[in-house]
Amino acid sequence: MSAETVPAPTRSYSYLGPRGTFTERALAQVPEAIGQTWRPVQNLGEALDDVITGRSDAAMIAIENSIDGGVSVAQDALATVPGLRVIGEYLVPVSFDLVARRGTRLEDVRVVNAHPVAYAQSREMLDRTLSGHGHIPSASNVAAAADLLLNDHAQAAVAPPGITEHYDLEILERDIGSNKNAVTRFLLVSTTTAIPPRTGADKTSLIAELPDNAPGSLLNLLEQFATRGVNMSMIESRPVGDELGRYRFIIDAEGHILDERVAEALLGLRRTSEKLTFLGSFPAADRTHIEVDPRFGDPVFTEAREWLRHILTGGTPAP
Amino acid sequence: MSAETVPAPTRSYSYLGPRGTFTERALAQVPEAIGQTWRPVQNLGEALDDVITGRSDAAMIAIENSIDGGVSVAQDALATVPGLRVIGEYLVPVSFDLVARRGTRLEDVRVVNAHPVAYAQSREMLDRTLSGHGHIPSASNVAAAADLLLNDHAQAAVAPPGITEHYDLEILERDIGSNKNAVTRFLLVSTTTAIPPRTGADKTSLIAELPDNAPGSLLNLLEQFATRGVNMSMIESRPVGDELGRYRFIIDAEGHILDERVAEALLGLRRTSEKLTFLGSFPAADRTHIEVDPRFGDPVFTEAREWLRHILTGGTPAP
Amino acid sequence: MSAETVPAPTRSYSYLGPRGTFTERALAQVPEAIGQTWRPVQNLGEALDDVITGRSDAAMIAIENSIDGGVSVAQDALATVPGLRVIGEYLVPVSFDLVARRGTRLEDVRVVNAHPVAYAQSREMLDRTLSGHGHIPSASNVAAAADLLLNDHAQAAVAPPGITEHYDLEILERDIGSNKNAVTRFLLVSTTTAIPPRTGADKTSLIAELPDNAPGSLLNLLEQFATRGVNMSMIESRPVGDELGRYRFIIDAEGHILDERVAEALLGLRRTSEKLTFLGSFPAADRTHIEVDPRFGDPVFTEAREWLRHILTGGTPAP
Amino acid sequence: MSAETVPAPTRSYSYLGPRGTFTERALAQVPEAIGQTWRPVQNLGEALDDVITGRSDAAMIAIENSIDGGVSVAQDALATVPGLRVIGEYLVPVSFDLVARRGTRLEDVRVVNAHPVAYAQSREMLDRTLSGHGHIPSASNVAAAADLLLNDHAQAAVAPPGITEHYDLEILERDIGSNKNAVTRFLLVSTTTAIPPRTGADKTSLIAELPDNAPGSLLNLLEQFATRGVNMSMIESRPVGDELGRYRFIIDAEGHILDERVAEALLGLRRTSEKLTFLGSFPAADRTHIEVDPRFGDPVFTEAREWLRHILTGGTPAP
Repeated sequence: MSAETVPAPTRSYSYLGPRGTFTERALAQVPEAIGQTWRPVQNLGEALDDVITGRSDAAMIAIENSIDGGVSVAQDALATVPGLRVIGEYLVPVSFDLVARRGTRLEDVRVVNAHPVAYAQSREMLDRTLSGHGHIPSASNVAAAADLLLNDHAQAAVAPPGITEHYDLEILERDIGSNKNAVTRFLLVSTTTAIPPRTGADKTSLIAELPDNAPGSLLNLLEQFATRGVNMSMIESRPVGDELGRYRFIIDAEGHILDERVAEALLGLRRTSEKLTFLGSFPAADRTHIEVDPRFGDPVFTEAREWLRHILTGGTPAP
Repeated sequence: MSAETVPAPTRSYSYLGPRGTFTERALAQVPEAIGQTWRPVQNLGEALDDVITGRSDAAMIAIENSIDGGVSVAQDALATVPGLRVIGEYLVPVSFDLVARRGTRLEDVRVVNAHPVAYAQSREMLDRTLSGHGHIPSASNVAAAADLLLNDHAQAAVAPPGITEHYDLEILERDIGSNKNAVTRFLLVSTTTAIPPRTGADKTSLIAELPDNAPGSLLNLLEQFATRGVNMSMIESRPVGDELGRYRFIIDAEGHILDERVAEALLGLRRTSEKLTFLGSFPAADRTHIEVDPRFGDPVFTEAREWLRHILTGGTPAP
Repeated sequence: MSAETVPAPTRSYSYLGPRGTFTERALAQVPEAIGQTWRPVQNLGEALDDVITGRSDAAMIAIENSIDGGVSVAQDALATVPGLRVIGEYLVPVSFDLVARRGTRLEDVRVVNAHPVAYAQSREMLDRTLSGHGHIPSASNVAAAADLLLNDHAQAAVAPPGITEHYDLEILERDIGSNKNAVTRFLLVSTTTAIPPRTGADKTSLIAELPDNAPGSLLNLLEQFATRGVNMSMIESRPVGDELGRYRFIIDAEGHILDERVAEALLGLRRTSEKLTFLGSFPAADRTHIEVDPRFGDPVFTEAREWLRHILTGGTPAP
Repeated sequence: MSAETVPAPTRSYSYLGPRGTFTERALAQVPEAIGQTWRPVQNLGEALDDVITGRSDAAMIAIENSIDGGVSVAQDALATVPGLRVIGEYLVPVSFDLVARRGTRLEDVRVVNAHPVAYAQSREMLDRTLSGHGHIPSASNVAAAADLLLNDHAQAAVAPPGITEHYDLEILERDIGSNKNAVTRFLLVSTTTAIPPRTGADKTSLIAELPDNAPGSLLNLLEQFATRGVNMSMIESRPVGDELGRYRFIIDAEGHILDERVAEALLGLRRTSEKLTFLGSFPAADRTHIEVDPRFGDPVFTEAREWLRHILTGGTPAP
C-alpha cells in the first residue's frame, strides 16, 4: 500500500536444539522461517510454552515415529494444552552417521556415545563392526557428538547427518541405521486461529474424546468420515488418563476444513462426540493432491443445499 | 385488518365419489374443506388431473391398504406426476354393512353386489350366513349399493357404513368385514409449494429412485435416516418400470422438513440418490407427538454449526 | 443301472393357460418339462393349489413386470402359502401382434379385443394407425384372440406372438408394443425340499418379515448381505396386511445357499429377523456367472473356521 | 489314577522385581501361584524371555496405566513376540508412601528418591510439604526406597505401600499420590494354548493389523463386533513401525471365545483382517458378569445353525 518498505517484524520459531537436530532440519523446510529468529529449546514442554506465552510465534515438534522425542508426549500435549493449532507438516528422513574426533580410526573405537533410540537403530552395524564395544547413553543425538569434544569417555558417537557442519568431528561411517526408510513426522504449531489456505493436498487434524462405556461411539466416529468419503491418514488412541477404559483418538483426515465434505464430517463429529478439538487444517507434507470421489465433491454439497433452500422457500426444485 | 368481511374465494376438493365413499369420509376430516366445493370423480387419474390443471385446489386419495382403490396406482402416480405435494394425512376405519332394498329379509338374499376387495373382506360372514350365494362384482362400494335400486340382479350389497343416508336402502347386517381393525390411509394432495407448519407430530414423504446395479444404495439411503435419528413410518418399493431390477422407494419419515435432523437427512439423500422427490411435510393423521432423542434435537445441530462458524471466522470455540 | 429302461413316471406342470400365453412360453424353457403333462389353469390360485395338493409337480408363475398377471398377488402367495419352493427362474420377452380373422384388412378394423395391460402397452400404435377405434377388454391375451372366432364384436385383437399356431388367425401388424425391451420374469415353484445344484450363476430367494416399529431393522437386514459381499438383484416390500406400517420384504440375493457367504448371510438374517422364509436357491434365468470378490469366496470362510477350530482345540494357528 | 500322590511339579512365575513392586502384588492375586517359585526379573523383556524359553510357566506384566513400566512396550511385545497367550487379568490399586531411614523427620528431608512416574504422581504433595526439595530419579519404585539404605544422597523416597515389610524404613506420610483412583492393569501371560474355562465374566484379547491405505478397514473391524453385540472394553492403536500410517489395534472384547457371539466375531475378523492374533480368553479382573442381549445369546446362534442345517438336508424348518 505504501511506497516505503516497512521492515517485517522478526518472527520467532522454537525447536528442539541444539543446532543439527532432526527438528532443526524440519524447521529448515519452512520458507517463512528463513531469516527469522530460531530458538533452540531443551524439550517439548519448553517449545509449547514458548508458543503459549508468545515468546515464539510457532514451534516445530516431532509427532510420529520420532527419534528426537516421543510421539505419545506430543500427542498428549496437543490434546491437553488449550489454544494450540497445527499450521504445517514436515517429514525428515532419519539416518545416522558414526562420527569421531579428528584422527580417530574405526579400529580405535571401544566406547560409543548414542541416544538410546539411535543406538537401537544402529545396533546391527555397531555389533558387526565394533564387536565388544561399550555404549554411553546420551541425552540427544547432537549431545552424543558434542560430548566427544568435552571428554574422552568415548571414541565415537552416533549422530545425525550434517553434524560435522557444527562440530569439529569426522565421519567414520555413513548411514549406519538399520531402517533405511526411517522418517520422522513433524508439526509446526502455533496459537494463530487463522487457517492456512486450501491447497488441494491438505490434512485436517482432530482429537475426539469418546464417552465412557459407549462401545458404539468409535464406530459412530468413523462413520462420520466414511459417509462423507473422507479418508483418514492416521488414527491413534491415547488413554485420557483419569481412569481405565477411557480414550481419546488423534485423527488426521485427508482434506481441508474448507472442503465441504470435511466441514460436514466435522459437524457430524461435533454433534456426536463427547469432546472434539479442531487442531487445524494445513498442507500435507507430501503435497500429494487428494483425489476426491465426485460423489463427495464440493458441488454435490452446494447443489443439495440449494435444492433444500428451494423447497423451504416455496420453489419447486428441478428433479 | 378491515371491518368489512371479504367473502373468501370458494376452494374446490376432488375425491373418489359418489357420496358415501370412504374417500368422502376422509375429506370430511379436513376442517378447511367444510363448506367448500367438493368434486366427486371416477378414479385416481381424474382426481390428480383436477389438481394439476387447477380445476381443484386439492384432491383426497387413498394411499395405503385401500378398499376404494389401489395403493400401487396412487404410489406410482405420486412418483411420476410432477408438481404434486402432500399437505395432509387422514385415516378412515374401514368396515362394511350388508344392505338391501326395503323389506328384504336375510333369507331372501341369493346374489350379492360387492366390489371385489370388499367382497374378499366380507367373504367369511357371507359364506357362513348365505351359503350358496352368488356374487356380482361392482365398480365401487357405493355402486354396489346404488345398483340395487337400478335393477334386481342382486338382493343385497356390501356397502360402506352410512350408505343409507344417501340411498333408500336398509341395513341387513352391520360390520360384516373380517378385519375389525381395517383402516385406509388417505393423503390430501395439492400443487401448492407452501409447506404446512411444523406441529411436532409431522411426517415427511419422499420418493427415492435407486441407481441400477448398486447393491449398497438402499443401505446408504437408510443410513441417511439412521445416522440422524430419523425413524421411518413407512417404506415401500415400487418397480420403476423401464426394466427389471430398478426400484423406487416411497418413504414416510417421522418429522418435518423444518426439523434440523430431517433437513440434514434430506441433504444427505439428495447428495447420494440418483433421483429424489420431496412430496411434502404434513401433520401425521394420528397426531402423536414425536419423541426426539436429545442427541438429534435442533439445538445440537445449531450448536455444531455455530462451532464450525467460529472456527472458520478465526475464533476459538469453547471445547 | 439296469439294462431295461423303466419308463419315467409322467410329471405334471401347471401354468396359466390356455395354450399360447407367455406363461406357456416360460414353461417351454424348462427341459425337464418337455414331453410331460402340462395343465393349463385359470389363475395363480389354481396353479399353486395344484402344487400344494400334489396334482402337479410344479407350477410356472409370473412374478415380476407381468403381463399375464400381477406381481403383488404372486409375491403375497409365496409369502403366505406354506411349503412352496422356487426351483427355477425364466425370462420371456413380451411383445404383441395385432391379429384378425383371415381376410381382414387393417382399414376394416373399428373395434379391438385386448387385455387391458396389453392394450395400454399397444395404445400408441393403435391410436396412430386406427384412430377412433373402440376397445373391448378381454380376460387374457389369448382370450382376446380366441374371441375373434366366437363372435364378430371386434375385427382385430392384441395377442402374443405365435397365437396363429393355435388359432386360425392372421397377423395384421407385428410387435406393436411400445416398450421393445419388455420382459416378464417367471418362477417355477414346487414343494420339493431338494435344492437345485449350485451352478455359479444362482439366485437365492427369501422373504423377511420385519418387526413392527423397529426402524433400524431394515438397515440391519441389508447389512447381513452387505457385510458378506452378497448382492441383491431384487428387493420389494409388501404390506403384511394385518395393520398399517408392517412390511415384509421379498429379496433375491445373488448366489446359492451352498455358497459360504450366502449361508452366513442367511444365518445372520435368521438370527435377526422376526420371521424368515427361505424360498429357494436356483439357477438365475440369465445364467450370468457371479463374480465373487475374493474376500468373500468360499476358501476365506473355510480358512477362518479352520483357524478358530485350531484355537479351540489347543493348537497354535498360523498367523 | 494312582494311589500314591506324586508331588506336583513346582511352577515358576516371573515378575518385575524386586519384592514389593506392584507387579508382585498382582502376582499375589493368582491362587495357583501361591507356594510356587517366583522369579523376580529386571524388565519386561526378561519376563517374556523366561516364558518363551520355558524358564517360567507364566509372567505377570503391567499392560495399562502402568507405574512400574510402560504400556506401549508391553503392547508391542504382545504384538510381536509369537506364541504368547494371556491367561489372567489383575488390577492393583496404585498408591505411594513417603518413606525414610529410621529416625528421619519430615523437616529433615531435602532430597527425595523417586521413579519419575511416581514422582510426577506425588509432585503436588511434595511441593506443598517439602518446598525446594531436590529429586533423584530411581530405576524403580522399590529401588528408590532401597537406595536409602545404600547411600545418603537422599533423605526420603517415594515407595509403594508395604515397602517397610521388606526394608528397614519408616513411613513419613501415607498415600501421597494425587490420583486416589489410580490403578494398574496386569496380565498373566504364558505359552499354553489351553484356554481358561468360561466364567460368564470373561475378556477376549486380540491384536488386529490393518491393511495399509484402507480407510474403511477399521470401520469394518468394529462392525464385526457391533453386529454380534460384542462390546469392547479397550481399544488402543500402536504403529506397526515399518512405515508411517500403518497401525495395529489391541482390543479387549467382552466375552469368551466359547461364547457364540465372540466366536462369530472372531471368524468375521479373521476373514477381513490382514493379520489377526488371538491373545486369549480369560476371566476379567473385575469379575463383573456380562449381561448379554438375548438377541446375541448362544441359543440364537445354535437355533440359526439348526435352521440352516434343516434346509440343507432337505427338511422343512419351522418358520
